[in-house]
Amino acid sequence: MEQLISSTQNPRIKRLLTLQQKSSERRQSGLFVVEGRRELLNCIAAGYEVESVFCKTTETDPPDVEGVVKGCECFLVSPSVYERIAYRGSTEGVVAIVRARSRRLDELLLSENPLLVVLESVEKPGNLGAVLRSADAAAADAVIVCDPLTDLYNPNLIRASIGACFTVPTVACTSEECIAFLNGHHIQILTAQLQDSKLYDAADMTGPTAIVMGTESTGLTDVWRLAADAHIRIPMLGRLDSLNVSVSAAILLFEAVRQRKEAN
Amino acid sequence: MEQLISSTQNPRIKRLLTLQQKSSERRQSGLFVVEGRRELLNCIAAGYEVESVFCKTTETDPPDVEGVVKGCECFLVSPSVYERIAYRGSTEGVVAIVRARSRRLDELLLSENPLLVVLESVEKPGNLGAVLRSADAAAADAVIVCDPLTDLYNPNLIRASIGACFTVPTVACTSEECIAFLNGHHIQILTAQLQDSKLYDAADMTGPTAIVMGTESTGLTDVWRLAADAHIRIPMLGRLDSLNVSVSAAILLFEAVRQRKEAN
Repeated sequence: MEQLISSTQNPRIKRLLTLQQKSSERRQSGLFVVEGRRELLNCIAAGYEVESVFCKTTETDPPDVEGVVKGCECFLVSPSVYERIAYRGSTEGVVAIVRARSRRLDELLLSENPLLVVLESVEKPGNLGAVLRSADAAAADAVIVCDPLTDLYNPNLIRASIGACFTVPTVACTSEECIAFLNGHHIQILTAQLQDSKLYDAADMTGPTAIVMGTESTGLTDVWRLAADAHIRIPMLGRLDSLNVSVSAAILLFEAVRQRKEAN
Repeated sequence: MEQLISSTQNPRIKRLLTLQQKSSERRQSGLFVVEGRRELLNCIAAGYEVESVFCKTTETDPPDVEGVVKGCECFLVSPSVYERIAYRGSTEGVVAIVRARSRRLDELLLSENPLLVVLESVEKPGNLGAVLRSADAAAADAVIVCDPLTDLYNPNLIRASIGACFTVPTVACTSEECIAFLNGHHIQILTAQLQDSKLYDAADMTGPTAIVMGTESTGLTDVWRLAADAHIRIPMLGRLDSLNVSVSAAILLFEAVRQRKEAN
């Protein structure tokens, strides 16, 4: 780790900034940006290939990534450059460029009794990241994102997931592909919707289950309502009419966890 | 609604911006800022006194607040002024200055079988707002914030709560005051902590219950661990070691809701 970069005009820094800011650049190059030690370690543990690492120069606390990241280029960057490339202030000291991977439905490895989250058309990367964090905690098999309006390597998504985007398998596909996949694997489809639904804890989630949620603003489309084995809802007992999607996902997933534990 | 404000140098606009940005100003003046129609309607329904309302000039969709907000001053503001005072872009069209209220423990009206959330030293206003949203959904009696590092009228808090800060009674006090209050009302104290704890669904939440949570980074202090009737944890079944505090709150609150329904 010998080269020191002290200008934000350095071509490597400019490329990094473009990758952070533009999904089109991420798509074309097949690269994305990871910030933070914990996130990077989760990313490496998940088998991603790191292309280059940028560490802030500090005397007291050099990031310990060289031992972990083999064969990639490492650069030291000055504090002012680091401040420019880091989203989260200067606490973590490491930003990396990583190679994206294709993630297809037919590559998903499912457990014997799968528990899946399906999100339709989620708009906000932060929400998707938060759902991934909830899915990690409940050890869901995967999160499937149908017709996404965000790419899966958006920096806000990675940050909100605090690395769960690397620990939880995630696939993007169309709703039709997803429904065919779930039917083909005999996984029941439970759609979260307020109208025409039963209480979530009245649904049997002990078998293979996919919990399907739409956007906060418009909910699920008819494609999913019609494909559902059951419609379920979390009771809104207060004065507001919705929960954050990651909160809803967690309540439903942990109900499945609870039921499965009781069934054993 | 006749006066049009078209300069960000207008004294009323400067005052509004100061109230948004400075908690010291909010404390001294006893005023705070609410943005958004839904939030303002929840605020008014909760009995808050609105001092002044600022509406963006639009020809097609004038905000319908005059009928609701009686006796307050209304101002039209130009789109450029509105852009300056609004956090959330220009979709909602209304920002108001509202009078704060003292909220004390001894003023809390508890139900027959109280369900409370207690947060110790929560740092991020957005997290507190998200917890309030979860508490509203589960119809918790109140959220008590001990030794808060944020004021309860922070704009990020109000926004993240999407108005639940007005629908859920919220009190700030010291941990000692809160523990004395809970003991005095015979409300059991369940502290959420990973170490030295049992699974949350093994705890009986059918009686009067306070769910106590610490910060994501450092957890609860010993004061709370010692005051607890039981320590509970949500199992972390994945690779990460924590959930967002609003997600944890929702899982625990809805377990209480489920148990209480079954007990009836």
